[in-house]
Amino acid sequence: MTGPFGDAPFLTDIPLEAARARLEAALDEARVGNHDVEWVALDDALDRVTALPVFARLSSPHYHACAMDGIAVAAAATRGASETKPLLLRLDSDAFVVDTGDPLPPQTDAVIMVEDLEPQSDGRVAIREPVAPWTHVRPIGEDIVATEAIVPKRRRLAPADLAAIASGGIVEVAVVRLPRVAIITTGDELVDPAVAKPERGAIVDSNGVLLSAAVRRYGGVPVCYPRIPDDRARLEEAVAGAITTSDVVIVNAGSSAGRHDFTARIFERFGELLVHGVAIRPGHPLVLALARERDGRRVPLLGIPGYPVSAAICADLFLAPLVERLAQRDPPDPATFEVTLTRKLFSALGEDEFVRVVAARVGERIVAVPLRRGAGVITSLSRANALVTISRFTEGAHPGTKLPARALRGIGSIERTLLAVGSHDVAIDLLAGALADRGLELVSANVGSIAGLVALRGGSTHVAGTHVLDPASGTYNDVAVRRYVPGTRVALIAFARRDQGLIVAPGNPRRLRSLRDVVAQRARYVNRQRDAGTRMLLDALLARDGFGPADIEGYDRLEFTHLAVAALVADGSADCGLGIYAAARALGCDFVPLATEPYELAANATTLDDPRMGALIAAMRDPGLRAAIEALGGYDATHAGDVRIVETSAAAVS
Amino acid sequence: MTGPFGDAPFLTDIPLEAARARLEAALDEARVGNHDVEWVALDDALDRVTALPVFARLSSPHYHACAMDGIAVAAAATRGASETKPLLLRLDSDAFVVDTGDPLPPQTDAVIMVEDLEPQSDGRVAIREPVAPWTHVRPIGEDIVATEAIVPKRRRLAPADLAAIASGGIVEVAVVRLPRVAIITTGDELVDPAVAKPERGAIVDSNGVLLSAAVRRYGGVPVCYPRIPDDRARLEEAVAGAITTSDVVIVNAGSSAGRHDFTARIFERFGELLVHGVAIRPGHPLVLALARERDGRRVPLLGIPGYPVSAAICADLFLAPLVERLAQRDPPDPATFEVTLTRKLFSALGEDEFVRVVAARVGERIVAVPLRRGAGVITSLSRANALVTISRFTEGAHPGTKLPARALRGIGSIERTLLAVGSHDVAIDLLAGALADRGLELVSANVGSIAGLVALRGGSTHVAGTHVLDPASGTYNDVAVRRYVPGTRVALIAFARRDQGLIVAPGNPRRLRSLRDVVAQRARYVNRQRDAGTRMLLDALLARDGFGPADIEGYDRLEFTHLAVAALVADGSADCGLGIYAAARALGCDFVPLATEPYELAANATTLDDPRMGALIAAMRDPGLRAAIEALGGYDATHAGDVRIVETSAAAVS
Repeated sequence: MTGPFGDAPFLTDIPLEAARARLEAALDEARVGNHDVEWVALDDALDRVTALPVFARLSSPHYHACAMDGIAVAAAATRGASETKPLLLRLDSDAFVVDTGDPLPPQTDAVIMVEDLEPQSDGRVAIREPVAPWTHVRPIGEDIVATEAIVPKRRRLAPADLAAIASGGIVEVAVVRLPRVAIITTGDELVDPAVAKPERGAIVDSNGVLLSAAVRRYGGVPVCYPRIPDDRARLEEAVAGAITTSDVVIVNAGSSAGRHDFTARIFERFGELLVHGVAIRPGHPLVLALARERDGRRVPLLGIPGYPVSAAICADLFLAPLVERLAQRDPPDPATFEVTLTRKLFSALGEDEFVRVVAARVGERIVAVPLRRGAGVITSLSRANALVTISRFTEGAHPGTKLPARALRGIGSIERTLLAVGSHDVAIDLLAGALADRGLELVSANVGSIAGLVALRGGSTHVAGTHVLDPASGTYNDVAVRRYVPGTRVALIAFARRDQGLIVAPGNPRRLRSLRDVVAQRARYVNRQRDAGTRMLLDALLARDGFGPADIEGYDRLEFTHLAVAALVADGSADCGLGIYAAARALGCDFVPLATEPYELAANATTLDDPRMGALIAAMRDPGLRAAIEALGGYDATHAGDVRIVETSAAAVS
Repeated sequence: MTGPFGDAPFLTDIPLEAARARLEAALDEARVGNHDVEWVALDDALDRVTALPVFARLSSPHYHACAMDGIAVAAAATRGASETKPLLLRLDSDAFVVDTGDPLPPQTDAVIMVEDLEPQSDGRVAIREPVAPWTHVRPIGEDIVATEAIVPKRRRLAPADLAAIASGGIVEVAVVRLPRVAIITTGDELVDPAVAKPERGAIVDSNGVLLSAAVRRYGGVPVCYPRIPDDRARLEEAVAGAITTSDVVIVNAGSSAGRHDFTARIFERFGELLVHGVAIRPGHPLVLALARERDGRRVPLLGIPGYPVSAAICADLFLAPLVERLAQRDPPDPATFEVTLTRKLFSALGEDEFVRVVAARVGERIVAVPLRRGAGVITSLSRANALVTISRFTEGAHPGTKLPARALRGIGSIERTLLAVGSHDVAIDLLAGALADRGLELVSANVGSIAGLVALRGGSTHVAGTHVLDPASGTYNDVAVRRYVPGTRVALIAFARRDQGLIVAPGNPRRLRSLRDVVAQRARYVNRQRDAGTRMLLDALLARDGFGPADIEGYDRLEFTHLAVAALVADGSADCGLGIYAAARALGCDFVPLATEPYELAANATTLDDPRMGALIAAMRDPGLRAAIEALGGYDATHAGDVRIVETSAAAVS
């Protein structure tokens, strides 16, 4: 392809294992390593890796030391002592009072501990048992013999290692120099996160932060270069400089095969291209190369893609082992466990896909709720507490499938997670904060009210945020609970009554006062996803006025949260959308109230005695939290934490 | 008890869980926490814990962004395009060339990716499918909506969190202030590890290093006080000062009930004593207290015992949860696994004992070799790669018992461990270094040749270092292998021939030229443990000369290594002992050669194709290693790495 679309070929992705094997083989063959030694004081040596064994300068103990408080004696002089015929010892001639750690006095070779002594009124001490030589004595070198190796090379120094080294009289150790990783970010559109108001098209550079933190985690030192525009010559110059001063060079982004994607071509100039394109998602436009020898070293080069989740996944798969190799560090133990999938997941054949999930123990099993999958959605990785891999040999997985998962923040955090699958509410963030103070992580997955109730029915969530109007009765939630969670005692925990209405641009320029106005003016509407309570409210309000979906311009334009709807209105790319007042206010929009509704958390009543549920209800009843929710505007949280039970019958199965 | 032994009562130990529960209840009741906030730049925020939720300043994307390279179009204008009737679009009027990340051009609402385009020679572009609105567009706020919480409070910030925060336009975050832990070490006898030649009775202070490193690992900042002598008034003053400026105060040592053990009494002055004495080994003389309120805070006080292993165990059990609570950090995931015990372990009823072990995968199971158990032997903790707990409800465990273990350096390190149970040799440290370069950890447990062969027979070690003389034939190892490892093809891997002889004081003041001299002069001998090859050599040499154990003064004084024997001779507390030349030379002793013997590593021949064994043999054959071994003196390593097979018959069972 030529012309405005560039002339680079499309990538040919190779499987993940093949890419990793190709990199490793190249590193082995080129003997890529880091043999530089740095001497550091013990106080700075924690978690550093020894480059040489540490040999003891002193023995420990360096004298025969008493191992107990008591008396030191010549063992031979205690022969004959017995229960019936105690032996009386005179202090300071037959026996010497000693404390633990004292040197063994001359002419003694054993210690009798204070618990076995019977002091007499005349100052002598009786014993009722003889003692063997060297009893309760720590002989010279019991722990460490001078000259011996206390700690081997390639040991990542733990506190006990440092203590052993200090005991051997050593205060400075030779450690492996930390590998330096050059991070070169490139792109005309990148701007600093501190920029007050980025231009349209300007992309806030978050990958610099991501990659330098990742390098630190893996055991290296990040060396961040000033951002470089899409200028091949300048990028080449930066890479040339980095190769001479760093152990690894990262270029981010430009790793694909587009018009401005120079990375692979530049790497090729400096050495051997190993891989361009890996069959993973996110992350496939990855470049791996090895620079030609310079000063006896061959420096690995990584072209990391620009989408933040792709960058994070590639760092984890390819940068981590590289830095660990050069730092001579073991990878952390994999924290893997089994999860049950709650939703169907499609995934392309031929690509290993890394799906970010929220995992939580619900009942006997750990369930995993997939988060959004776009490579640009970095919050999907930040919100996730685990990663699930969908193999390239399958086209996805059904709900209920058991899959291996990897914890991102420790297994402990999964056990502390309270799952709220269902409707989105802005105030949930405040509740999450209150639960954090109680040691719990409340994670919400915004799938809408009905999908939340279905998850509750399937045992896939602790609570389901719900606000579903039954148009026939005008009541909220009870009818939906009976319908979607049949045969179960369901607890409905009040959270807040909240105002729903039209979110409109500041000043309401189109003067939208009702849905009638929206229809009449063909205002550009932005809707919520199917099964969202807010969409069902829209449908009910439309039906009441005799309208249907076809009457609304934009009925099929879907967002998943109130805030996302408000953001589109604020930007002017939509005229209105139904949502809560708090979201309108947060984005500076105006608001036309149309209804007030109860937002409740549905839970299985049998789980009310789970301590996590107890903490949840206690947090909701806290007056401080109620006040904070009401301060958002459009909320009445008077009854937060009140519980009512809905008895549903099995016969009600829908 | 009064007089020279002090008047403090003995400790009454309470069970571990009771002690921990008592501490936790007191902390909860006193609402001990750390609510101080510190603002840090993103670059310094890795692994810090958020004190407040982080709210987005910017949306991400903050404009409608193209999600693919290709063309932006008005979706409505693509209706009708089909496989048979392609639609031709004019660039810069019907369609606009865009790259990923570009803002969506005005009047367009969808992107068609470059792969789906057919550029025409006239500059127009053909498409064969209509596109739906918002296809390949990342709408405003797709990832983050301004004002929403990007990261909750109490989140330990990972790279992806930092990237998400940066994407939200935030460059500074509120994190929990790191808790300050005052470390007050006390003891007249403590000296700095840097002291050139400590006096007899001076103890090298290794606990300061241990505790400050431990505090860092747990997430706190150590504040180390100058060492304080055993002076109650000065110690009290230091504790008083520390309470006002720190979040936790540690006093080490003086935590028991001896003459100079002031810690508990001082803590009682400042607040409430919670625990004095816990039924654990090592570590029982522990003090837990809570200072009275001062400036609205109650500071936990820990009296940690002086023996280094006790200090490490107490830190792990009591200091870690305290610091983690104040740092608002989760404990690391427990790396537990199951081990099979190789030796019988006795343990006192009523005390939970923490046994340091070397764990390694031998065949199908992970075996655990217990290391030395003295609380003063810090190298037992440094050498160990796992901890096994013997419950206070048992008196120990039999060999073959399966027990839960906790990895100290990651599960990975256990898989990389090559176990050498058997005879001690100084040159093994050099071999360990060569294997470290190959990514393996060679760990030796010095139990003597015969015990090593028994371990090999039981499948409890990879190799067994062995040098056993058969007095009848004058040959080494074959007879012992046939006897102790019957029914097995055993590979004997040559390591080195080495000189054995009498280790004597410098200048050989007692002119000991032979064992006859040792017997005749009643020289103070130090022997090796039962089953050590060196002891068997002594027995054979004695028998040859018509002597027996009773003729040797000190036959029952036992050490486990050549170096330990040499250390006692060097110190003058023994006149001689049998050992290798390298040990004599290392400690500056003189040496009277008596024999030359082959030291070989016995292995099960079926394991020779294990890659770890391959690495072992390759390392032994390396000329550099051979030269280094011979440089120790008294070694001939010409044949290192040569393998011979000893066929043993089942009938040979002893």
